[in-house]
Amino acid sequence: MTRVIGIDAGGTKIQGLVLDLEKNILFQSLSGHGNPTVSFEEALTNLSSVIQQCLDHTSSEEVSHIVIGMAGAESGNLAHRIKTELQRMTSLPIILLNDATLAYFSLIGNQNGVMTIAGTGSICYGRNGKQEGTTGGWGHLLGDEGSAYHIAIEACKQISMEMDSGKPHSPLSRDILNEIGASDGKGLKGFIYSSAKGEIAKLAKVVHKHAEDGNDAAILLLKIAGEQLARQTISLLEKLQIGTKPVIALKGSVLEHNVVVQSVFKERISERFPNVSYIVDSTSPATGAVDVTKAIREGRLSNE
Amino acid sequence: MTRVIGIDAGGTKIQGLVLDLEKNILFQSLSGHGNPTVSFEEALTNLSSVIQQCLDHTSSEEVSHIVIGMAGAESGNLAHRIKTELQRMTSLPIILLNDATLAYFSLIGNQNGVMTIAGTGSICYGRNGKQEGTTGGWGHLLGDEGSAYHIAIEACKQISMEMDSGKPHSPLSRDILNEIGASDGKGLKGFIYSSAKGEIAKLAKVVHKHAEDGNDAAILLLKIAGEQLARQTISLLEKLQIGTKPVIALKGSVLEHNVVVQSVFKERISERFPNVSYIVDSTSPATGAVDVTKAIREGRLSNE
Repeated sequence: MTRVIGIDAGGTKIQGLVLDLEKNILFQSLSGHGNPTVSFEEALTNLSSVIQQCLDHTSSEEVSHIVIGMAGAESGNLAHRIKTELQRMTSLPIILLNDATLAYFSLIGNQNGVMTIAGTGSICYGRNGKQEGTTGGWGHLLGDEGSAYHIAIEACKQISMEMDSGKPHSPLSRDILNEIGASDGKGLKGFIYSSAKGEIAKLAKVVHKHAEDGNDAAILLLKIAGEQLARQTISLLEKLQIGTKPVIALKGSVLEHNVVVQSVFKERISERFPNVSYIVDSTSPATGAVDVTKAIREGRLSNE
Repeated sequence: MTRVIGIDAGGTKIQGLVLDLEKNILFQSLSGHGNPTVSFEEALTNLSSVIQQCLDHTSSEEVSHIVIGMAGAESGNLAHRIKTELQRMTSLPIILLNDATLAYFSLIGNQNGVMTIAGTGSICYGRNGKQEGTTGGWGHLLGDEGSAYHIAIEACKQISMEMDSGKPHSPLSRDILNEIGASDGKGLKGFIYSSAKGEIAKLAKVVHKHAEDGNDAAILLLKIAGEQLARQTISLLEKLQIGTKPVIALKGSVLEHNVVVQSVFKERISERFPNVSYIVDSTSPATGAVDVTKAIREGRLSNE
């Protein structure tokens, strides 16, 4: 009981790590996507291959648990099916969690707190003892405020408002139209309704660049994103009744790398919680496996 | 030159009418959908059959033009392909327009004005002499404010906010969750991300019902829709520089049948344009064919 296999199974790749209890990485295995809602068979094949490679490595002799954080783990009975299949490979206990839970443990470990993610989408996930909760994460039609997708769509809405009013395009709008190769409303709609969510979200980079150059309209869009993410985070801290010195982890491209979003986010939070401590690091979610096994041993997380 | 064939080719059905110049309906033919972006071959077959039935009828002897208003007519070279195919059936001139243009002529005829449509989506289309313009119509990701879809999504966002804050659901939220058979956030997201836009838009009926019962939250959602539609309409009147006595036609379930939306819409418009005249009637768009031929003859509309 001195080592753990931690697996982060995401929509684009799977990372498997053999870890000691100080979270040192003894071995790594990588593979294609591990999201069973995208393709169950592929996800299972990729997962099995990563687990087998970890198990085959000499460092894995003392492994006590396999901990998997998986996007889509909560959809229907997929988790149960995946676990049953994988359990044929090994008699080690397999703990299958949502990807957000594993990421939380990698950043915040066994403390209480909230992790706010703002990448293509946005969500807050938090824990207080045995209790867990989320705010946001409603997807692009119902919200995902503060996410790259949301920032990009708000910038595109400004273009449509300029067209409706017959006003000339702002420099930000012109650059976005250039980026997507559109010259009119038809071109803008063509791009929005034929592109994947991730493609649209990439337009947030144009907003980011204009903000760095001091463009007020771009800075305002990012400030609003920071406010929205702070509001979601405060809601979750209050819902989970996490006291006056909370730990907040920041994750995802928008929150980790965007100075305007991050500073407005922290300002708003500190108005409500002056003694907050922040965690911003790019630790692999798979390293959360170590604290997950501790939490299960101590009864703060159930192995179901 | 005393009769016209008018055809309204929509996403669910095609209506073909033989009309005299007083817009009396002499013959009617109906068929399945006529949207070439859904299925080009089907749309063409349905259109050909409706035109043939109209041409075969005794009342069509004096027909001078065939006027078709078609959803999707502006997509790529579809209009040209459709027209070429149909022209094999008849030597009569065929005028192919966007469906909104034909609907405009059926309601407003050869006057200048604006037609505001709020059904599943929303758009304003207007004309001033030879000049035409639109506002709104940006689709569900970029806007469609004031539409049934937008009202429904705003109501669903209130549910998600209640869930995020841990507050109990309002009576409106409870009824919407009942309507879609959901009991939690997962159920709500499941419905939104697996349903067609039209299915989501139908939830606006629940808002409508609660507003009739005096529910403040429902009334507020509808008032906002009325404001948004008025704003789009005023923008278009200003963009087209239509004077102080404009004609405004109201079309679509939300604007025609919802008392709250319609009254707020008219209030806001009259603050800006006190001498407006409104047209609300359910005349078939196909009857617009009569005024379309007049407009072409008088050079206010081009037959391209």
